[in-house]
Amino acid sequence: MKPPVTTTDPLVLFMPSGKRGRFPKGTAVLDAARQLGVYVESVCGGRATCGRCQVVVQEGNFAKHGIVSSNDHLSAKGAKEERYERVRGLADGRRLSCSSTIEGDLVIDVPQDTVINAQVVRKAATDRVFERNPAVRLCYVEVDEPDMHKPLGDLDRLKVMLERDWGVKEPAIDAHLLSELQSVIRKGDWGVTAAVHRDEDDPRPTITALWPGLHNEAYGIACDIGSTTIAMHLVSLLSGRVVASAGASNPQIRFGEDLMSRVSYVMMNPDGRQAMTEAVRAALRDLIGKVCADGGVSPDDILDAVFVANPIMHHLFLGIDPTELGQAPFALAVSGAVHLRAQDLDLEINRGARVYLLPCIAGHVGADAAAAALSEGPHRQDSMMLLVDVGTNAEIILGNRHRTVAASSPTGPAFEGAEISSGQRAAPGAIERVRIDPQSLEPRFRIIGSEKWSDEEGFDEEAARLGITGICGSAIIEVVAEMFLSGIISEDGVIDGQLASSSPRILQNGRTFSYLLHDGSPRITVTQNDVRAIQLAKAALYAGIRLLMEKQGIETVDSIRFAGAFGSYIDPKYAMVLGLIPDCDLDEVKAVGNAAGNGALMALLNRTHRREIEGTVHRIEKIETALEPNFQQLFVNAMALPNKVDPFTKLSEQVTLPQRKARSGDSAGGEAVPRRRSREERAARRSRE
Amino acid sequence: MKPPVTTTDPLVLFMPSGKRGRFPKGTAVLDAARQLGVYVESVCGGRATCGRCQVVVQEGNFAKHGIVSSNDHLSAKGAKEERYERVRGLADGRRLSCSSTIEGDLVIDVPQDTVINAQVVRKAATDRVFERNPAVRLCYVEVDEPDMHKPLGDLDRLKVMLERDWGVKEPAIDAHLLSELQSVIRKGDWGVTAAVHRDEDDPRPTITALWPGLHNEAYGIACDIGSTTIAMHLVSLLSGRVVASAGASNPQIRFGEDLMSRVSYVMMNPDGRQAMTEAVRAALRDLIGKVCADGGVSPDDILDAVFVANPIMHHLFLGIDPTELGQAPFALAVSGAVHLRAQDLDLEINRGARVYLLPCIAGHVGADAAAAALSEGPHRQDSMMLLVDVGTNAEIILGNRHRTVAASSPTGPAFEGAEISSGQRAAPGAIERVRIDPQSLEPRFRIIGSEKWSDEEGFDEEAARLGITGICGSAIIEVVAEMFLSGIISEDGVIDGQLASSSPRILQNGRTFSYLLHDGSPRITVTQNDVRAIQLAKAALYAGIRLLMEKQGIETVDSIRFAGAFGSYIDPKYAMVLGLIPDCDLDEVKAVGNAAGNGALMALLNRTHRREIEGTVHRIEKIETALEPNFQQLFVNAMALPNKVDPFTKLSEQVTLPQRKARSGDSAGGEAVPRRRSREERAARRSRE
Repeated sequence: MKPPVTTTDPLVLFMPSGKRGRFPKGTAVLDAARQLGVYVESVCGGRATCGRCQVVVQEGNFAKHGIVSSNDHLSAKGAKEERYERVRGLADGRRLSCSSTIEGDLVIDVPQDTVINAQVVRKAATDRVFERNPAVRLCYVEVDEPDMHKPLGDLDRLKVMLERDWGVKEPAIDAHLLSELQSVIRKGDWGVTAAVHRDEDDPRPTITALWPGLHNEAYGIACDIGSTTIAMHLVSLLSGRVVASAGASNPQIRFGEDLMSRVSYVMMNPDGRQAMTEAVRAALRDLIGKVCADGGVSPDDILDAVFVANPIMHHLFLGIDPTELGQAPFALAVSGAVHLRAQDLDLEINRGARVYLLPCIAGHVGADAAAAALSEGPHRQDSMMLLVDVGTNAEIILGNRHRTVAASSPTGPAFEGAEISSGQRAAPGAIERVRIDPQSLEPRFRIIGSEKWSDEEGFDEEAARLGITGICGSAIIEVVAEMFLSGIISEDGVIDGQLASSSPRILQNGRTFSYLLHDGSPRITVTQNDVRAIQLAKAALYAGIRLLMEKQGIETVDSIRFAGAFGSYIDPKYAMVLGLIPDCDLDEVKAVGNAAGNGALMALLNRTHRREIEGTVHRIEKIETALEPNFQQLFVNAMALPNKVDPFTKLSEQVTLPQRKARSGDSAGGEAVPRRRSREERAARRSRE
Repeated sequence: MKPPVTTTDPLVLFMPSGKRGRFPKGTAVLDAARQLGVYVESVCGGRATCGRCQVVVQEGNFAKHGIVSSNDHLSAKGAKEERYERVRGLADGRRLSCSSTIEGDLVIDVPQDTVINAQVVRKAATDRVFERNPAVRLCYVEVDEPDMHKPLGDLDRLKVMLERDWGVKEPAIDAHLLSELQSVIRKGDWGVTAAVHRDEDDPRPTITALWPGLHNEAYGIACDIGSTTIAMHLVSLLSGRVVASAGASNPQIRFGEDLMSRVSYVMMNPDGRQAMTEAVRAALRDLIGKVCADGGVSPDDILDAVFVANPIMHHLFLGIDPTELGQAPFALAVSGAVHLRAQDLDLEINRGARVYLLPCIAGHVGADAAAAALSEGPHRQDSMMLLVDVGTNAEIILGNRHRTVAASSPTGPAFEGAEISSGQRAAPGAIERVRIDPQSLEPRFRIIGSEKWSDEEGFDEEAARLGITGICGSAIIEVVAEMFLSGIISEDGVIDGQLASSSPRILQNGRTFSYLLHDGSPRITVTQNDVRAIQLAKAALYAGIRLLMEKQGIETVDSIRFAGAFGSYIDPKYAMVLGLIPDCDLDEVKAVGNAAGNGALMALLNRTHRREIEGTVHRIEKIETALEPNFQQLFVNAMALPNKVDPFTKLSEQVTLPQRKARSGDSAGGEAVPRRRSREERAARRSRE
């Protein structure tokens, strides 16, 4: 019988979780953590051999908690712990929580980076620390030897110990392990480590791998399969450390640059689906090989994998024909989370490894968007967050803990530099920053590979080395915004041909005009068509966002998160000046990088996050922009810079926007005759800045 | 809201289950059956299209139940039922329970043989009717078409209907179906039949197969993999009908006649295990092909399979090295029930088909013995049943609902005719019945292929045609027992050489004698060694049985069941005269044929039987005869005919046994000098008969 807890029992506070409780003296710290629901890893089950359960005592007087914490309040190292320290080493201050008992008040830190087999961390996927509760755990047990009087099979005796030592009840076992079981158990001299997978609501746990003796490492992969690039992290399930990350181009590009051309390829070629499925799986196998080589990890130690992808990549990866996604009503074959085995997908990792795919939100809003939502968590907060992932399609999620709505908007490839006359991919020599003097209309810019502005000393030498080759996606936003701010284009997006007479930068091309950004080889200009392409893209994005804001009944959003590579490079100010995104305090607009990859990582490291996003996706209201009668008007309004009707009050406080035209009933933004702006007007603007 | 049930509501009795209840008028008979837990099949979910839910009204006054039942008390046939009758046909008196409502008191018979797609029943596996509750059910649903406003995937919308119409909650789905799903659903114009597998204690159901539209047939196989023969039944899971049965030799015989020589083969040959696994799986694929051809069934319609086998065959079939079973402590790799997929075992049936293996009882008492126990059910009754399966090893189970014990005994191959000088397999020309005249010592016999005794007219002609080639296993029991009853051999098993002078049937061979059964070509004799071989075999069997009786604290058993081929051919009287089996009322000794196959069939048709045998096996006490100090003495006692110490009182009431020797302290039964018996004594015995 456990003695009752009294108020004179020691008080123990676990950090960083902040969970606390009183425990009788002599309670093992690991047991206390478990009773409080604090996740502390352990493979050996308290035998002081795996070293996974390390903790650190925080010494001092924690007046706020009423705790005076000291290493003296932990039992002295016993023989087992000393043996571990001698054999495996134990960093200064580290203790094995399975072997240390509580003898007084304590503040205990659970480090999230317990390094057992030293691994080189090549790249931090994220600075965030994720609480762990992985779907796969390693459980070491010592199996009873066979007994003729109680002729239970080896597996059955293994199960007895898994239940006794780990609370694993009636596990199933993967078929391929049946033939290995007896030799593994005997090779380990009746000591065996079982990988136990447990996921889903009330599932039967499953033994998915076995090793003789103590096996002290288990890894997982978290992977975002994008249309153009695939990003993968290799993570220790036992410490949460990302041991390697790598990216690769999606080889499906050879079947079509954008998703719809890949769907067409499937529809046109009898074995197109199969070829594309095999292409993406082969790329994943290569990437797995790469991250394993980088991290010094055996693929056989990878026991769990989480994938996210847009709906078409999701289907192609699973071997599902994506044709239905190419036409209304855009029916997903499966929208819920998918549980599979790695071998179902020809992935060359441990034969018993499991695979989890996050749910898709809708036919155009995939598991990648769900993962981004999981990462950024609009559903976890009170304030209204707009989460945008801009690509060929923009996925838009808007919500808070009370209600979340989502949509996709067909922005087209303009933001990625395609359909722009001088557009190019982000590469050395590409223009990435642009400023235009509002008086002289002369530009200055920076190119990728150089830290200097084009009007700074030494730029020419660097430009000679790198070349000045084109405009990358982020700079297109910037140059159009600067053209707007400097009066070169009107709020309707028309390049002011009147300026050609006063500036050599304004060139006439038949009936329209263009802006000469760099007169070299190649000659880099922004044409009226380029501006139109950006207007169309941003209008599609903004109209989608505005639609969701209408659904939520709001006029402004509290914060904006840009997911994806595009968001990492653009300047939020210029995005807002162009009216890509709604009015918002600029400090609350942040790029969050590969949020989809982060979300995959969270789902890999903690299965409660899987339940969280499954429940969230279930509640997200999906808006199909094409079916909304209001979308067309919102789109037309959004063709203007920044918008024909929306005021952008907060932006105006930080940026001087060109004076608005008087509102007109005119509903066509595109072909309106550009208003002429006098030099005087422009001078006045300049003086305000 | 359902109206409350009142005592004026019609009373409905379902047969053969005997379950009864009152239901408001207008309740569909199918719904009433389900509410009472009466199993009535249905695939279409009450749409009157599958025809599986047929019932028959028993008309008449059932005074005992207080029911006057009439077809008038059922609603008239509605449009749907009439349409079914017109299109598919409905036998006289048959009604569709989904479409017939209760309008008055009824006695309703649920036929167990509802034939939908007429199948030729080639062989009745058993006369017993098994209540059905299979692990795999077919569920027809009509899936909502995709809706852009609620972008659930096709699978997710299928799941909604499976829950709504069939109560199937949150099913998993086999990976290979993901890629077929959309085309199947569209091919069926949004109507789809799902095979849903549900087994184990609180499992997640799984969708294992899908068909467009209504798919109205599902089959299973029940198979007993014996050391020498494999027996398979093909059964409709929807009607319980056995549509085909077939048997084949186990091709592993080429690796070794008996199990231990097969284990040796594995130990001696590096790829021996793999070769034997592949051999048995290939044989199973052939048998599946055969039963499917015989039954006119597509292998793709086989969705479930149950296998039973002795431990070594069980392991080899699963791909497990059986070496541990060849040596103490005879450790099974797995003793519990095994759940697999057909594709794990390279069986060529539906890709999503499931496989279930019954639990093994111990290292020498396999899933076949468990299946025999399930079939005969000692654990289901109050009286004490002995269940014996005689092969190279005899598996012995003794028990009742309170306690069951089990053991195996190494009888060797003597009972199968091996190690017997004139022994042979049961084949035309083999002697199968023997009588010996106790006065003249002249034999008469019958041979397989002829109905005549050897002293009957016309026998010689038939013998000339068939040949008289040897003694089959069952006849060996009989001839030795007759030799004992006629005084040719003593209770110690010694052939009385004194008789050689008075009978030409007693021949001297050096220091021992033999009995000439047939003086032809070949000459068929029973040698002293033959008698010894039978004594050793029967002593091993009986000592094992007696050991279990001691464990149970009983002196006699209430009933004896012989499972397996051997039991079907031997005469229980002679088995008892020889002391193979303990004293028992001869009317209570029965051969039950392939009880293991029957048990497999039960587990296939009703998953509650799986739980039953799993629980029973868990409770069975396993006795390892080799570890029991008493076994040696019981064995020595059992060398005598019928036994040195056990009285065989009941047998004596029905058969005149030779007078017993005075009990001696002599423990060696074998080499004692045979007591001479005078002609007078023999004459006296004869006059008593």
